[in-house]
Amino acid sequence: MLPINQYQEQFLVYLQNQKKDKEPKNLYEPIDYILQLGGKRMRPVLTLMSAEIFDADYKKALPAALAVEVFHNFSLVHDDIMDDAPLRRGKITVHEKWNVNTGILSGDAMLILAYQHFEKYEPRIFRKLAKLFSKTALEVCEGQQYDVDFETRDDVTIPEYLKMIEYKTAVLVAAAMKMGAIIAETSKENAKLIYDFGLNLGLAFQLQDDYLDAFGDPDTFGKQVGGDIIENKKTYLYLKAIEFASEEQKAQLLHFFCVQPEVNGDKIIAVKEIFNATGASEATQKAIQGFTLKAFKTLKKIKISEDKKAILKTFGENLMSRNV
Amino acid sequence: MLPINQYQEQFLVYLQNQKKDKEPKNLYEPIDYILQLGGKRMRPVLTLMSAEIFDADYKKALPAALAVEVFHNFSLVHDDIMDDAPLRRGKITVHEKWNVNTGILSGDAMLILAYQHFEKYEPRIFRKLAKLFSKTALEVCEGQQYDVDFETRDDVTIPEYLKMIEYKTAVLVAAAMKMGAIIAETSKENAKLIYDFGLNLGLAFQLQDDYLDAFGDPDTFGKQVGGDIIENKKTYLYLKAIEFASEEQKAQLLHFFCVQPEVNGDKIIAVKEIFNATGASEATQKAIQGFTLKAFKTLKKIKISEDKKAILKTFGENLMSRNV
Repeated sequence: MLPINQYQEQFLVYLQNQKKDKEPKNLYEPIDYILQLGGKRMRPVLTLMSAEIFDADYKKALPAALAVEVFHNFSLVHDDIMDDAPLRRGKITVHEKWNVNTGILSGDAMLILAYQHFEKYEPRIFRKLAKLFSKTALEVCEGQQYDVDFETRDDVTIPEYLKMIEYKTAVLVAAAMKMGAIIAETSKENAKLIYDFGLNLGLAFQLQDDYLDAFGDPDTFGKQVGGDIIENKKTYLYLKAIEFASEEQKAQLLHFFCVQPEVNGDKIIAVKEIFNATGASEATQKAIQGFTLKAFKTLKKIKISEDKKAILKTFGENLMSRNV
Repeated sequence: MLPINQYQEQFLVYLQNQKKDKEPKNLYEPIDYILQLGGKRMRPVLTLMSAEIFDADYKKALPAALAVEVFHNFSLVHDDIMDDAPLRRGKITVHEKWNVNTGILSGDAMLILAYQHFEKYEPRIFRKLAKLFSKTALEVCEGQQYDVDFETRDDVTIPEYLKMIEYKTAVLVAAAMKMGAIIAETSKENAKLIYDFGLNLGLAFQLQDDYLDAFGDPDTFGKQVGGDIIENKKTYLYLKAIEFASEEQKAQLLHFFCVQPEVNGDKIIAVKEIFNATGASEATQKAIQGFTLKAFKTLKKIKISEDKKAILKTFGENLMSRNV
């Protein structure tokens, strides 16, 4: 197996080679733009790693890895329209740089292009990959819809929230890994286990994202710290705080989450204090730990050599030890 | 083979049986809504007919027929957002009934659902269908982008226009028919020929739509007669009129196509007069005839019994003799 940054590099080389000057330009230029914006390329790297974990050459997994990355970027383009987001990875979003219609149509094309990358595989593998991909893609749409629905609901439960982030984020991480397993033609059992590993790691990752959004280091966290608080997002931290809060704390929190002050500094500090005082911060960290441990437990059951398990475990530990 | 309305009925029964109360409601209700809005169901009927033309039971083609119809409706939902259209088939559009975000997301889900319907087929057929579908779907997106691009261009040529309607409309008709051929596992040559038959019939159909938009019977034409003229759409009629026009006619036409009067009656009459006087109307009818004849010529080459050719020819003739 290669070091992780090598998979990243190989993926970027492959991505670069795919770039063609296709017509009509107004459809394909936005696609190149968003795909070149960067990001950690975590999902495609997981597909490549997973293929090698199960003894296939990572090169065989490159088209599937690209499909996953193209799909992920499709969802970013359409989500950014829905959220009216001006920036993505610090750069201007597609619908702002061009317009909403371009964002919709280029996004649609990306979803189709993702499927086309699977055409590199023979029928039996193609069908398995496309089937997993469709199931996953639909769940991502459902997750996004739940997220939208939750904005106007004040009775969202923790299990509902977990299902939402499972669909919106974790299933794609899980599917990315299972695709490597499918390409390597490992056992069904192994493929299921690596999916579960990815799913729990994905859940831990998203909860950590919630946590770091409030408590991350402003110098290293990629997004604006406190962003979720400014936008009154009902994250795991918020839901747990409401659950644990005294009447007074609850009243304060509900008040903060229905106002949008011009300057947010005081609000962010006050809300974080409530997150800490109620025990919501601690509960969130415990949940992160819980899902990480669940992932590692699943890892033990996979029938691969111990050194390969160690690689996946290190990857998981590094992912979860980030404070950025 | 069944009479055409029987295919329509069987398709509607199948469509109805697919309807499930899926969650989240805000994602799936708009999908049921648009799929129940009606329409001629021409594309899925063509898939069913094509399967039987090549000696397969139409029942085997129902999932592919549904995929084609779901995709067609996906494109309507997203196009209606892009065109800011209030009505579709006389009913309120999805993004107006719900909102733009719902239109985007439900549309995305429909595109994925279309692929899922192919999962009913075994790997070899699945791969062929999904591959044809992806190619076609991407062309439809490209066609839509060309259509958008043409709005702000004043140098669109007839070949460019034909390519646009080929991609935006004809390829899906062609693919719908080829899917029937794939499912029936007929020869590659037959599958290619039925595709070409559908492509030329689709082109004739779209040009006729252009023609009827100006010259159709207001009592029976499904849309507002003169709609393209009101919207200054550069259709085949318009491009031919510009090509054939005297300096004076051209100046008039260019003037009409850069104004949006409150009341359009006079404008429509005047533009139609220019379409007739320049010979654009006649040229359009000739083009329609040309593509229809090309379709029928292709039909002759398909290796099927003469009575089946007669059925397809009658279908084509009925389609092209509509004055609605």
